[in-house]
Amino acid sequence: NIRNLAMEKVASNVKFPCKHSGYGCTASLVYTEKTEHEETCECRPYLCPCPGASCKWQGPLDLVMQHLMMSHKSITTLQGEDIVFLATDINLPGAVDWVMMQSCFGHHFMLVLEKQEKYDGHQQFFAIVQLIGSRKEAENFVYRLELNGNRRRLTWEAMPRSIHEGVASAIHNSDCLVFDTSIAQLFADNGNLGINVTISLV
Amino acid sequence: NIRNLAMEKVASNVKFPCKHSGYGCTASLVYTEKTEHEETCECRPYLCPCPGASCKWQGPLDLVMQHLMMSHKSITTLQGEDIVFLATDINLPGAVDWVMMQSCFGHHFMLVLEKQEKYDGHQQFFAIVQLIGSRKEAENFVYRLELNGNRRRLTWEAMPRSIHEGVASAIHNSDCLVFDTSIAQLFADNGNLGINVTISLV
Ligand SMILES: [Zn+2]
Ligand SMILES: [Zn+2]
Ligand SMILES: [Zn+2]
Ligand SMILES: [Zn+2]
Repeated sequence: NIRNLAMEKVASNVKFPCKHSGYGCTASLVYTEKTEHEETCECRPYLCPCPGASCKWQGPLDLVMQHLMMSHKSITTLQGEDIVFLATDINLPGAVDWVMMQSCFGHHFMLVLEKQEKYDGHQQFFAIVQLIGSRKEAENFVYRLELNGNRRRLTWEAMPRSIHEGVASAIHNSDCLVFDTSIAQLFADNGNLGINVTISLV
Repeated sequence: NIRNLAMEKVASNVKFPCKHSGYGCTASLVYTEKTEHEETCECRPYLCPCPGASCKWQGPLDLVMQHLMMSHKSITTLQGEDIVFLATDINLPGAVDWVMMQSCFGHHFMLVLEKQEKYDGHQQFFAIVQLIGSRKEAENFVYRLELNGNRRRLTWEAMPRSIHEGVASAIHNSDCLVFDTSIAQLFADNGNLGINVTISLV
């Protein structure tokens, strides 16, 4: 079946432009490499960083903060590199997200606490910080999340995620601060949980 | 049925000696209080602190170390307040325990790393430190467990458990360092996981 093989050879050499060419990408790719490139393309638009994926906004990085201020007005912002992220009513049933913004070092960070049942009958909390910025910019920072109380302390330190990557895969891989409901009870006060958040330059 | 009530009243006033009177307890208790007292009686014997409960040894505190040295010779001991607890082959399937001893401040501590499936299909690691000593002595110390690597750090600090209480209930309540297999992979090197252990006086 010589003819089909020849056709395949032609197809595998045809190059297509990246679908984000409208955002400035000049790459052209053979079919087999196209999908992978587009998923991580540096020119791909930024998605709205709010967890839950209910907002469908997308656009360039320099419009993300404007979008958050216009469309997600209820999100609190605190100034400073060392703040307390207070999550209220952590005993609410079901999957719940808590979100706030932290501004320091001339950048904006989004703090996310997510409660979900990744394994049947086992509710867990996932806390993570993402930079409203590129992955390259994120590499300049480290964040620390700390639960404190009752002669116990639980601390997680890592590089913030970029909102270009998002937090879903990190939460899926437990690459964040993870704790279950009994630990949450140890640190919570009256159903409210304070998480100390510190951002530093590396 | 006046007569039964009268009998019950008599029975509820009869006092029994604590079953640990042979270990020096002088308490005498009404029937309804007896079980609860005996479970937490200060005079109750110490059980062998090795996890897994396969060893049935019990005796007074000052014989625990002798028992460990005689019957559990394979347990490594490291000297110093700041050591590395190296758990090898953490990818071994099933429930596994890693144990070592740490000596400092004139005391012996037992470090336990346990891998188990508390929730169906969700393997977790639990790391904890227990003092070969009473609960009162344990209150003088704090331990820190730290996983380090790949620009990430996970830290847990708490008061050591006394071997008189054991670690099973703390592990059950996640009142220890808890992490799952994907986090273990992030910090492990070639299937071996190093946990930094630091003991301090408070
Ligand atoms: Zn592209
Ligand atoms: Zn949005
Ligand atoms: Zn007693
Ligand atoms: Zn034993």
